[in-house]
Amino acid sequence: MDPVYSHIDANKDRFINLLGEAIAIPSVSGDAAQRPSVLAMGQWLVRQLERLEFSSIVERNPGTQELQGVTLALPPVILATYGTDPSKPTVLVYGHYDVQPALKEDGWKYDPFQMVVEEETGRIYGRGSTDDKGPILAWLWVVETYKALGKELPVNLKVCFEGMEESGSEGLDDIIKEEANNYFKDVDCVCISDNYWLGTKKPCLTYGLRGVSYFMLEISGPAKDLHSGVFGGTVHEPMTDLFHVMSKLVTPQGKILIPGIYDDVAAVTTQEDALYSNLDFSLADIHNATESETTIHGSVRDTLMHRWRFPSLSLHGVEGAFYAPGAKTVIPAKVTGKFSIRSVPNQTPERIAELVKEYVEGEFAKLKSRNTLKFDAPQGGKAWVADVNSWNFVAARSAIEKVFKTSPDLTREGGSIPVTLTFQEALNKSVLLLPMGRSDDGAHSTNEKIDTLNYIEGIKLLATYLEEVAVVTKE
Amino acid sequence: MDPVYSHIDANKDRFINLLGEAIAIPSVSGDAAQRPSVLAMGQWLVRQLERLEFSSIVERNPGTQELQGVTLALPPVILATYGTDPSKPTVLVYGHYDVQPALKEDGWKYDPFQMVVEEETGRIYGRGSTDDKGPILAWLWVVETYKALGKELPVNLKVCFEGMEESGSEGLDDIIKEEANNYFKDVDCVCISDNYWLGTKKPCLTYGLRGVSYFMLEISGPAKDLHSGVFGGTVHEPMTDLFHVMSKLVTPQGKILIPGIYDDVAAVTTQEDALYSNLDFSLADIHNATESETTIHGSVRDTLMHRWRFPSLSLHGVEGAFYAPGAKTVIPAKVTGKFSIRSVPNQTPERIAELVKEYVEGEFAKLKSRNTLKFDAPQGGKAWVADVNSWNFVAARSAIEKVFKTSPDLTREGGSIPVTLTFQEALNKSVLLLPMGRSDDGAHSTNEKIDTLNYIEGIKLLATYLEEVAVVTKE
Repeated sequence: MDPVYSHIDANKDRFINLLGEAIAIPSVSGDAAQRPSVLAMGQWLVRQLERLEFSSIVERNPGTQELQGVTLALPPVILATYGTDPSKPTVLVYGHYDVQPALKEDGWKYDPFQMVVEEETGRIYGRGSTDDKGPILAWLWVVETYKALGKELPVNLKVCFEGMEESGSEGLDDIIKEEANNYFKDVDCVCISDNYWLGTKKPCLTYGLRGVSYFMLEISGPAKDLHSGVFGGTVHEPMTDLFHVMSKLVTPQGKILIPGIYDDVAAVTTQEDALYSNLDFSLADIHNATESETTIHGSVRDTLMHRWRFPSLSLHGVEGAFYAPGAKTVIPAKVTGKFSIRSVPNQTPERIAELVKEYVEGEFAKLKSRNTLKFDAPQGGKAWVADVNSWNFVAARSAIEKVFKTSPDLTREGGSIPVTLTFQEALNKSVLLLPMGRSDDGAHSTNEKIDTLNYIEGIKLLATYLEEVAVVTKE
Repeated sequence: MDPVYSHIDANKDRFINLLGEAIAIPSVSGDAAQRPSVLAMGQWLVRQLERLEFSSIVERNPGTQELQGVTLALPPVILATYGTDPSKPTVLVYGHYDVQPALKEDGWKYDPFQMVVEEETGRIYGRGSTDDKGPILAWLWVVETYKALGKELPVNLKVCFEGMEESGSEGLDDIIKEEANNYFKDVDCVCISDNYWLGTKKPCLTYGLRGVSYFMLEISGPAKDLHSGVFGGTVHEPMTDLFHVMSKLVTPQGKILIPGIYDDVAAVTTQEDALYSNLDFSLADIHNATESETTIHGSVRDTLMHRWRFPSLSLHGVEGAFYAPGAKTVIPAKVTGKFSIRSVPNQTPERIAELVKEYVEGEFAKLKSRNTLKFDAPQGGKAWVADVNSWNFVAARSAIEKVFKTSPDLTREGGSIPVTLTFQEALNKSVLLLPMGRSDDGAHSTNEKIDTLNYIEGIKLLATYLEEVAVVTKE
């Protein structure tokens, strides 16, 4: 791989400058006014794919959406192919070209849409640098490098780049399902680079994500808000009922009180337990991230297990109650308490919703209130876990060892990346999350950055990963 | 009193038209743009007082306020005197000339600032008709009637009319305290007509008001809101702690769980108990008012005792949590739960705050959370209760019996009218609440009205009350 690595090193400035070009296009998918920039970013990518002689470039149109009072064309899902040799494995890579909103006045050191490379730190600042323009461009620079060296790519590559990831990936799932037996027919594995190292020092592979089930408890009584002077003490108050029910969901130590909720949680195997040793993580990391020492668990192992592989329940808020500053003596007429459960293998959204409904309705009945409870479970997404011994992971692990001279952490994420499960279920192939950036990149925050090391070694990593996929699939 | 009553009946249309003039001045104290109208309404009253030859008319200026981004002159507190005969008792009457906001499009049948008298129902519609322009004008028409008849007023009358009642009575308390030994020096009793009959059929006298103590529980942990995917299950969540503590305050049946909170509540005496018989009230009234059947108690007696003479605790809301429609998986970093206690004799705000603080901090400590609790008791107002056997009440009761040929209900209010306690404490004289309108007048709602009967018989009632004050103080 030496010539590949040398070429990448030699083109470091060029690859950084191209990332700067992409950062300069403010492709904020959540802002109607910026939609033309999202489309422009898509066109910029298509031009790169054309320049690199990808074939079958398709701009799939997911339709329109209503946003901020206007009807907007959704940005295209861009599909492209590099190589169609039936003797080679086919790797599908996914990424997104839209970004989170960013304003200088939010606290950015530099203009968020003007790349700045800090000499002393090597940090490349700019919205999208790490989420997810850096990673998607890295795939292209692998192809450019092989072309420049006149070297054949060891695999067939297919790309799937969307422009709506930061805004719910509208329309993407349908396209993936439609293309499963068409554009994605020959895909052997999927690689997604859209998450982060666990810490700041050690690369990782990510093999699991929690699911999420969202719940709403609407409790209503009077037809309109009442004055607590006139009615306090004489009517059943929806807020009192709501606080009673919602206080029965989880303990301050995070134990979920819903009977049966832990029954489907997969037991920790010895092999899994071993993955929690020597991770690039300390309790100080979580204290720094929250700027507080409010952690529940005393060890890294317990903390990460409760982030990654045990369910959690969080109370988010109340709709319909008094929420402004100041003092108001209202008895709210109808309140909706909101909470969600982060779920893990082998829990299912259906079973979780069943257990929550039964428990919540039972607890409400115990109150003997004359108010009315309406239970709603509007969303439920399954957890995802991959086999870390599958060839896709073996290839990636080997690539990391070659590029970074260290074994990767094997991590999960506590949140969800829904497209992972969509690919898994639609294609029924191994999906791998191969992060490029670090935990402190500030993906959805101010001063988003990617370190030059992560970006440049990341290009090498992706190239090496493709080589290793070719090796392991030949064995 | 026949000539007085006849004169009032003969001037019915004139008194209604004058009320119409006052309604046409949109004196909304809570709207900066309407402040000139509040001042104009004050001037309209001053002209009436001058016409009726009140003496020592003073417009006390309470200073300025910041409202909706502008600095505004507060409307004057208008003081005036009619009669200074040292051999007569002096009655101070209070009322307010500002009104609640009103827009036709809120659901009014008619323009809220254009009086409409419905022939068939006898209802006088318009903002301020019952709250509180009708009642304050009624005092003036008593004076006009006596003047027209060449009859001497049986008492000295002092008026105190403010223009900020609907906006917190800013500046009033200080003026009352300052004038206690000056303008109000010779006052023998106070009469306030700014509340309502218990029902729609029977007049009442009001002898009690509950106090209110407001509380805020701020629970904070992380420095900023967290993502429940990343942190759920690993940190102490302020919302979980808050729901645990706030669920321990009151049962769904309204029983306050704070130890000692009922210790200072005055016992129900046999005499008081008797006041709860034959009240013009039914459970259907509360069902109609709330448009629900969510009452806690099965009898009128229990219901009204819990509105009037037992404390209640209501949860109002949470500041800092997710309150909008939709689903958001945030872990709020800092949340402030808000609740208040309606207090009764002989509870004191100081003792209540002490008991609440001790209990809440104890319950929070039990949670063994690493978050931080900050307890705040920003407001506390005492309950008020008058002696229904005092001469002020005897006079008013006798007046009602003469005008309405029925004994009044003796009622309390569940809310507070803070000026009542201010007068009571500053002047140390009997304060009486003598309502003119009915419970269904819609004082702070759409389609505010006063019935012609209540307005015209109300003028007679106030005249008769002054006569009776003269009688009972002579005995």
